[in-house]
Amino acid sequence: MTSLIKIQQILKNYESDTPGVKANLYRFLNQGKLSGTGKLVILPVDQGFEHGPDRSFGVNSLGYDPHYHFKLAIDAGLSGYAAPLGMIEAGADTFAGQIPLILKLNSNNSLMSKSNGTYQAITGSVDEAIRLGCSGIGFTIYPASDNSLDMFYEISQITEEAKAKGLVVVVWSYPRGGDLPKDHETSLDVSCYAAHIACLLGAHIIKVKPPKASVYDKKALEVYDKTSQQYQTLEQRIAMVKRACFNGKRIVIFSGGETKDDASLLSEITELAKGGANGSIVGRNAFQRPYDEALKLLNKIIEIYKAH
Amino acid sequence: MTSLIKIQQILKNYESDTPGVKANLYRFLNQGKLSGTGKLVILPVDQGFEHGPDRSFGVNSLGYDPHYHFKLAIDAGLSGYAAPLGMIEAGADTFAGQIPLILKLNSNNSLMSKSNGTYQAITGSVDEAIRLGCSGIGFTIYPASDNSLDMFYEISQITEEAKAKGLVVVVWSYPRGGDLPKDHETSLDVSCYAAHIACLLGAHIIKVKPPKASVYDKKALEVYDKTSQQYQTLEQRIAMVKRACFNGKRIVIFSGGETKDDASLLSEITELAKGGANGSIVGRNAFQRPYDEALKLLNKIIEIYKAH
Amino acid sequence: MTSLIKIQQILKNYESDTPGVKANLYRFLNQGKLSGTGKLVILPVDQGFEHGPDRSFGVNSLGYDPHYHFKLAIDAGLSGYAAPLGMIEAGADTFAGQIPLILKLNSNNSLMSKSNGTYQAITGSVDEAIRLGCSGIGFTIYPASDNSLDMFYEISQITEEAKAKGLVVVVWSYPRGGDLPKDHETSLDVSCYAAHIACLLGAHIIKVKPPKASVYDKKALEVYDKTSQQYQTLEQRIAMVKRACFNGKRIVIFSGGETKDDASLLSEITELAKGGANGSIVGRNAFQRPYDEALKLLNKIIEIYKAH
Amino acid sequence: MTSLIKIQQILKNYESDTPGVKANLYRFLNQGKLSGTGKLVILPVDQGFEHGPDRSFGVNSLGYDPHYHFKLAIDAGLSGYAAPLGMIEAGADTFAGQIPLILKLNSNNSLMSKSNGTYQAITGSVDEAIRLGCSGIGFTIYPASDNSLDMFYEISQITEEAKAKGLVVVVWSYPRGGDLPKDHETSLDVSCYAAHIACLLGAHIIKVKPPKASVYDKKALEVYDKTSQQYQTLEQRIAMVKRACFNGKRIVIFSGGETKDDASLLSEITELAKGGANGSIVGRNAFQRPYDEALKLLNKIIEIYKAH
Amino acid sequence: MTSLIKIQQILKNYESDTPGVKANLYRFLNQGKLSGTGKLVILPVDQGFEHGPDRSFGVNSLGYDPHYHFKLAIDAGLSGYAAPLGMIEAGADTFAGQIPLILKLNSNNSLMSKSNGTYQAITGSVDEAIRLGCSGIGFTIYPASDNSLDMFYEISQITEEAKAKGLVVVVWSYPRGGDLPKDHETSLDVSCYAAHIACLLGAHIIKVKPPKASVYDKKALEVYDKTSQQYQTLEQRIAMVKRACFNGKRIVIFSGGETKDDASLLSEITELAKGGANGSIVGRNAFQRPYDEALKLLNKIIEIYKAH
Repeated sequence: MTSLIKIQQILKNYESDTPGVKANLYRFLNQGKLSGTGKLVILPVDQGFEHGPDRSFGVNSLGYDPHYHFKLAIDAGLSGYAAPLGMIEAGADTFAGQIPLILKLNSNNSLMSKSNGTYQAITGSVDEAIRLGCSGIGFTIYPASDNSLDMFYEISQITEEAKAKGLVVVVWSYPRGGDLPKDHETSLDVSCYAAHIACLLGAHIIKVKPPKASVYDKKALEVYDKTSQQYQTLEQRIAMVKRACFNGKRIVIFSGGETKDDASLLSEITELAKGGANGSIVGRNAFQRPYDEALKLLNKIIEIYKAH
Repeated sequence: MTSLIKIQQILKNYESDTPGVKANLYRFLNQGKLSGTGKLVILPVDQGFEHGPDRSFGVNSLGYDPHYHFKLAIDAGLSGYAAPLGMIEAGADTFAGQIPLILKLNSNNSLMSKSNGTYQAITGSVDEAIRLGCSGIGFTIYPASDNSLDMFYEISQITEEAKAKGLVVVVWSYPRGGDLPKDHETSLDVSCYAAHIACLLGAHIIKVKPPKASVYDKKALEVYDKTSQQYQTLEQRIAMVKRACFNGKRIVIFSGGETKDDASLLSEITELAKGGANGSIVGRNAFQRPYDEALKLLNKIIEIYKAH
Repeated sequence: MTSLIKIQQILKNYESDTPGVKANLYRFLNQGKLSGTGKLVILPVDQGFEHGPDRSFGVNSLGYDPHYHFKLAIDAGLSGYAAPLGMIEAGADTFAGQIPLILKLNSNNSLMSKSNGTYQAITGSVDEAIRLGCSGIGFTIYPASDNSLDMFYEISQITEEAKAKGLVVVVWSYPRGGDLPKDHETSLDVSCYAAHIACLLGAHIIKVKPPKASVYDKKALEVYDKTSQQYQTLEQRIAMVKRACFNGKRIVIFSGGETKDDASLLSEITELAKGGANGSIVGRNAFQRPYDEALKLLNKIIEIYKAH
Repeated sequence: MTSLIKIQQILKNYESDTPGVKANLYRFLNQGKLSGTGKLVILPVDQGFEHGPDRSFGVNSLGYDPHYHFKLAIDAGLSGYAAPLGMIEAGADTFAGQIPLILKLNSNNSLMSKSNGTYQAITGSVDEAIRLGCSGIGFTIYPASDNSLDMFYEISQITEEAKAKGLVVVVWSYPRGGDLPKDHETSLDVSCYAAHIACLLGAHIIKVKPPKASVYDKKALEVYDKTSQQYQTLEQRIAMVKRACFNGKRIVIFSGGETKDDASLLSEITELAKGGANGSIVGRNAFQRPYDEALKLLNKIIEIYKAH
Repeated sequence: MTSLIKIQQILKNYESDTPGVKANLYRFLNQGKLSGTGKLVILPVDQGFEHGPDRSFGVNSLGYDPHYHFKLAIDAGLSGYAAPLGMIEAGADTFAGQIPLILKLNSNNSLMSKSNGTYQAITGSVDEAIRLGCSGIGFTIYPASDNSLDMFYEISQITEEAKAKGLVVVVWSYPRGGDLPKDHETSLDVSCYAAHIACLLGAHIIKVKPPKASVYDKKALEVYDKTSQQYQTLEQRIAMVKRACFNGKRIVIFSGGETKDDASLLSEITELAKGGANGSIVGRNAFQRPYDEALKLLNKIIEIYKAH
């Protein structure tokens, strides 16, 4: 009962959405071990597109089979599973209904020349998501890139259609390209800006990277200084990202980035949870290790979110 | 009764519009403390998109919450509230009907490289405005920019649809880019030209910046000289902008630009009012100070417009 | 009765058009003082878009009011009035039915950088023309420009729709851009070519500038020489432009260009009329002088056409 | 009766087409003096677009009148008449049904700068062809040009619609642009390649230029050498082009290019006919001479095709 | 009966597809001499588009006739026949139903300049495939090329439509262009990546080239080293490509590339078959030799696949 209240509190923040969209948001929030906590841990498997199949699945070759990831997400009690068209198609029938799915509608790849690396191909549609029984769609934007205006337009069009058809919109917001220096891509103000843009574009769930303590825009720094804004700890910075998302009225989840040792990963996630993150997206740290170890690690992550 | 006459006089100038559009224009003119005066003060909150959330809301952090701005606009007795999709979605249900809304359909951002800074992404649609109960849509054009022809086409398409669906069209006309020198962006003739283009594109309400006393185009200067045109005072220049808008038959409102001290702001607004401006758009000067101070300042602005 | 015969002779040349289109062509030919003569004098007011409002209307400031131009065209007994969306919207209801209207569907402006000056923005639609009770649409093409293929495609699309909806298609054909030297833009062969392209694109009424006696294309010159083609007088050249328009089966009207003294203007128009021009488009020479003087000048122009 | 057999043999090669398309193919094959021979002589008048009206019609000024060409094609007993929109519109009603028409849907012009000379504007549509009672549509592609992929896509779209609406698709295939040297544009292998591409794109009738004895692609030359392919005579080369068109299963016609003396023209056409060409497109050689001379020349051409 | 089981096992892997799509997949798997083996040998004839007709058909000139290839594919007991629009149209009625057809929807050509050689023109549509009785559509993507994002989008759109209309989607995935060095286009990791991308885009059947033993991406090499991945033999590499295709859940077939001597071709195909390839696409090796020799060679290839 308390869990229902928690979910309903969150749903209330999506006040302009239809019951159809809210029902799908409910599915993510009512799924797996974090059901009713307002927290989410999601398994994304788009690395085959982004880095190629062997770099992604070679170290744990069971991952070449799309069913592996459905099963892992379900067995680990995760909140959802996100992947591009082919991966979802290859398991959507077998695991129908067992876990909320997110169809990733655009995709990057590392075979392309660097100069084109700040755009993504649209590789799916809202209707495909509906056909495959998904509860949401995923889309990456690259704020700062020379293609960002086009990407904003694309997600706006997709968002309008997705909402009309009852789907949850999950936006990966990764600043890069244009004049933005590589080492400022996860600066605090840039991360807050990127998350806020996703909110303004109508995203229900926003995914960003954990921000660093650096600040890119001098005028943002002035504001931080003027208001004695504290941002030395990751917990503080996560709270700021949440705040940038309509004062916490939007669900914000974070990626862990490249594989790191478990201790630092879990310590980082503890900071995320303390800062008010709604959860994590865990990909390579999940499927690039043996199944049992993955279940154990995911359980530890879930326990951290449960404890906060 | 007198107030109704004033509104009807203005509506008469929109002679080719449907009763549906006129009803929505009426809503803006019949709202808040300026109801029936033919004057408008509108709160715009798109600075989160344009400058990022922390530069916009850091100094008064209540502004991170979208409800704050709805409430401020309503409590201050303003005529309308304008914002991008996410901001409107986050409050449109709670405050349904309490104040006429303008959905801003395109958006700029300062994360992009400068070379791309003279275009905006389309981030909403007329149907989204209808879904959210808005009375109007907003759109920015950048006359002079290399993307201006595309922007004119975009707003033409949007305007046709908006009018067919009964919405008011508000155009922000900001000359920049191309061969236009930065210091001539608000030159008098350029401002008149920008306002006139918005009128020709079918805008119901035109928003420009208060013009400077400089003149960009030598041939315009010749005309001013030949006709002994007076434009030393802001009041005179505002009257000229109004004149450029179909001899005053279109509603023209002005922005205040960056925060300045209240005395000079109010003095500028007095000039605007004396020149025949239909009102002001007040953003950062409203939401970047404590709530009560904002109410007080907005009231002073409203009183100025009431007095003219 | 004779006048009806004249109109019917002209309509016969538009043999593939619907009665709907012919009815609207009839309206232009049956309007005002030139009714039944097969001649047209049209008032165009798109200079506010092209040169800005102050350069256009500053010298006779009554022209800032859209109603002024409707009234001028009607009082002068002209054949039609052409303007962009906003100008038409602002008077279409007041003057409904009193004069045939042409909605100009694309527009140039002089705020843009020169490098972009050979294209126009589409700023209206066939359906908007229908909504506003217009009898025709206007469109500018720039043969020779790097954007000319796109412009040809645009007008082809618009023409197909306009004809299906019963509207007259008026094409302004102004060669410029690409490799064409500025001083050859109105060369005789270039003007004939530009007029012919408009005919091939399906225009009902073609507007070009009066051609100079120079020849741009050596192969055209060879043909002129070989056939002892005479083109020293403007009258001869006008006849050649008419001939290039399906041997005179299309209505061809001419602009007067920038303001000049009345004597030379009237003398030029006499040449046009003698050469077989179907009429003139008179803009700045009409609305940039006092109302009564404008009426007088327009009357003189009309009398010239009546006399030929 | 024999003539019907000949036509039916040809129609059999268009096995996937509808009776509607075949009926229109039949109309071309059953028209004029070549009716039932399987041969076609077609009059194209798009030179006004391509080279301007005076270079095209100045030497025989009756050609400025669109009716002239309809009448010429009908009186000469030709198989069809092809022209852009305006030219067809200006006579389609007067001569309705008297000769099968081809609406040329894209057009080149020589006013544009050279750098843009390898593309054409789309200036008509399948529905316009239907409206004007045409039996087919015409389209030019420029294999080798940097715009060729776009042109292939355009004609593919048009072909799909044309076939669905029962129209014959005639493709002008003229290699040029890209890396292709000017003097190889009509090389034998290039011509075969261009004709074959048109076939693959679904053309019913293919128009190419008579090929020269040169070979562009070394690998094609190797094949010719290896198979002792004979191509010294034009007759041999024409047979090779026909062979490249599905082993002769498609109708292939040839242009004569620029005006030349009649003897060499007729001698060339004799070679074409002996090589198995289905006919010729004769434009300037027809309409740039006095009417009676044109009729005589066209009759000689027809007699050559009849004799083979 | 066993053969039905084999087919059903394969169909089970396409779990999200409709019975309509599965029925067409069944047709390929139940056709010709390899019926029921889960193996496919397909005849593709798009070389006329890619290299021109003479280089393709000159050495065995019967191949100029489209019927030749239908007949060859049927007589040889192949599993399917793939070609562009014109080739399919020219035989689809005569051979209706006798062999499953794949309409190739995009096409390359070697007449274009090299700088444009990494894109293809769309030259057909899903509806054309339906009209011609095809069981599938074919599409080439060029991962790594600067146009790859557009190609991914194009095939995504086509795939959605094809699946909705019951057609099998066959993707030719050929890495090239961008920063990818020519000699790495068939490197092992690149081939696996290309095949995986096709799977992610929703392809039912993936066609790639047999991979070389080289590795392009250092990070992929690290994974191979770390996991002691064996890839010295072609058999091993083929197994890796199959694995990259959803752990073998997708049908993967291979091309033989340019003509080589029969012994090495058959030896290569033996390796393919041993590695688990679902079959081969054999074009020039089939139609560029006498008919009987082609039948013999194709039979040997079929026997190899039957034996594995």
